[in-house]
Amino acid sequence: MKKLTGSILFVGSTVECPDIRYASRFCAPDPVVLLVAGQQRHLVVSDLEFGRAQKEAIGVQVYRPDMLGATPAGRKTLSGWAVALMRKQGIKQVYVPADFKVAIAEKIRHAGIKPVICKTAIFPERAVKRPDEIANIKQSQQAAVLAMRAAVSVISQAQISANKNLQYKGEWLTSETVRKVIYHAMVEHGCMASDIIVAGGTQSADPHMKGQGTLRAHEPIVIDIFPQHMEHGYWGDLTRTVCRGEAPAQLKKMYSAVKSAHGKALQAVKAGVQCATVHRAAAMEIERRGFVTGRNKTLPEGFIHGTGHGVGLSIHEAPRVGLNKDKLKSGNIITIEPGLYYHDIGGIRLEDTIEVTRTGWKFLVPCEKKLEI
Amino acid sequence: MKKLTGSILFVGSTVECPDIRYASRFCAPDPVVLLVAGQQRHLVVSDLEFGRAQKEAIGVQVYRPDMLGATPAGRKTLSGWAVALMRKQGIKQVYVPADFKVAIAEKIRHAGIKPVICKTAIFPERAVKRPDEIANIKQSQQAAVLAMRAAVSVISQAQISANKNLQYKGEWLTSETVRKVIYHAMVEHGCMASDIIVAGGTQSADPHMKGQGTLRAHEPIVIDIFPQHMEHGYWGDLTRTVCRGEAPAQLKKMYSAVKSAHGKALQAVKAGVQCATVHRAAAMEIERRGFVTGRNKTLPEGFIHGTGHGVGLSIHEAPRVGLNKDKLKSGNIITIEPGLYYHDIGGIRLEDTIEVTRTGWKFLVPCEKKLEI
Repeated sequence: MKKLTGSILFVGSTVECPDIRYASRFCAPDPVVLLVAGQQRHLVVSDLEFGRAQKEAIGVQVYRPDMLGATPAGRKTLSGWAVALMRKQGIKQVYVPADFKVAIAEKIRHAGIKPVICKTAIFPERAVKRPDEIANIKQSQQAAVLAMRAAVSVISQAQISANKNLQYKGEWLTSETVRKVIYHAMVEHGCMASDIIVAGGTQSADPHMKGQGTLRAHEPIVIDIFPQHMEHGYWGDLTRTVCRGEAPAQLKKMYSAVKSAHGKALQAVKAGVQCATVHRAAAMEIERRGFVTGRNKTLPEGFIHGTGHGVGLSIHEAPRVGLNKDKLKSGNIITIEPGLYYHDIGGIRLEDTIEVTRTGWKFLVPCEKKLEI
Repeated sequence: MKKLTGSILFVGSTVECPDIRYASRFCAPDPVVLLVAGQQRHLVVSDLEFGRAQKEAIGVQVYRPDMLGATPAGRKTLSGWAVALMRKQGIKQVYVPADFKVAIAEKIRHAGIKPVICKTAIFPERAVKRPDEIANIKQSQQAAVLAMRAAVSVISQAQISANKNLQYKGEWLTSETVRKVIYHAMVEHGCMASDIIVAGGTQSADPHMKGQGTLRAHEPIVIDIFPQHMEHGYWGDLTRTVCRGEAPAQLKKMYSAVKSAHGKALQAVKAGVQCATVHRAAAMEIERRGFVTGRNKTLPEGFIHGTGHGVGLSIHEAPRVGLNKDKLKSGNIITIEPGLYYHDIGGIRLEDTIEVTRTGWKFLVPCEKKLEI
């Protein structure tokens, strides 16, 4: 991807817009204005944030609204901050991200500055992580691994009742209970997350289902943990599928196929390789094992998603490891997560987060894989 | 506020856009398209979400992209879903919220449908809560109260070392440690949050400072807890200020003034009363107690924020309890949170979340207030 020439305007919080955090190193729960003009970065924050921003936003010129010569009314709105800053810089046209707020874009246009929507990634360099970013993602991945072990430990200790429901410490063991174990472990390691997946039985056939209710023996339990670090904001991502007690033969076959596809995808990973090559390695292995991807009535079944995605300040970011011609680069942090989903059986997904290197790849934090527990 | 006539289009996840959750009762981590046309609600979700959306989005017509007659390319983008849905409904012009994504607005315009930016609140009725919403906010507020008690308990048990630093279980007691106690309590009660404030000493003079490092005796510690329930998504909000050991005389005076202002604001709350009346009741009491609001060099000091805000599916929503003429309504859920901030001393803030009633107000969940612990 080519780099943009010209200034780029961001308005929002760093939660809404990780690019602001990436470009300013400033974490702003409240909205700010960031103007990126070549190597220069200009940040407008409220009076309250000014002191902190000056300390934390390294190499960034920080302004309070009153420092920009805005009208009193202009000092009170984000669009007013943005317009005042751009006038000060003599800017007549500015790039804005695709998710820029339409009302602010209109106000900028009315002030005589033309917003141009970016069609490509604004910071394609975000996909290649610096060593400090890799260290951050490792921290979150470590939290994911520890949370996974805590969850798997609870499930493995569960009793199997006569009706095959799982029991733990005298109560039915539910998705909710296991999820709470995971949240506590994440908090303990400085991370948080929402919508962690603990989906049992046929619920796991939908890769987006969070899961609810009592977990059962001899059925798949998909556990997908994606913690975000509360200080630096980088994510981790890890999925395992387990089964308490013996797994049915077909589930074992699915697991074996996904595990093998996971291995084949990893074998294909190396800087310079096309994302599609990695995805095809996984997809072909799943097909070779006899598993069909398609539709059961209207519902998608089989290997129904891409093989992976980049992980960083966003949980899903470039590069997408699917059917595209993007080439992996050394320093990409990606997930490898083939899966198989059938509505009458459930799902299997195995996901690791890895670093792409010149000669292959490295686990960020290794984590054991075992179906029957 | 007048209600809009005409159709309103939303595109996004319910995290980005609580209005989608409000209008569809559907919680979508992935982006969806929602069209509100009078009493009719049309929701487009991915194949994967279709089954769940049909179950959960009550009174809403749910579509998969393939049910709308979109082109194969159109089925793959959110703007394609939106355009196909609006063509099916014969819509030529549509309202979009102020934070609608500019690139999607452009694509809709290119497809011959005119997006019109809403200048007013789209669902002003969100400010008046239904009983089920009040019950939800109460749950989150209960989590906040329990987390506050856990935090205050730890601070009150801390030893005061010779250098006035606080010690707990043989370690320095830090903002980070207390924050972790709060996060664990919130998880235990089904909630999560980020950026919880535990700010000690002069850090607390900045109402946005999260706080870091070792906490000290005889200094203010502002604890601001705002949990969001992980299932229903409604927030709670609670702030207390405590001081381990005896508080300096000036801090006690500040506390007393804020507590009294909090009481005066509450006395003013009743359906039909202007928000400004409530804010002035707090501000005048603080002034009467001799505390000045203004600037110390460039930094704002004194009672530097509004008295409160609505709480619901957003942590900050209508009504704003500040200098505006909006009138409180029965069923508003608002915070009352006067504060005082001086950079050489620190801050005091006391915040409760209350329900506005016809005759006055009710605590959602009462919580004790005490400075010295």
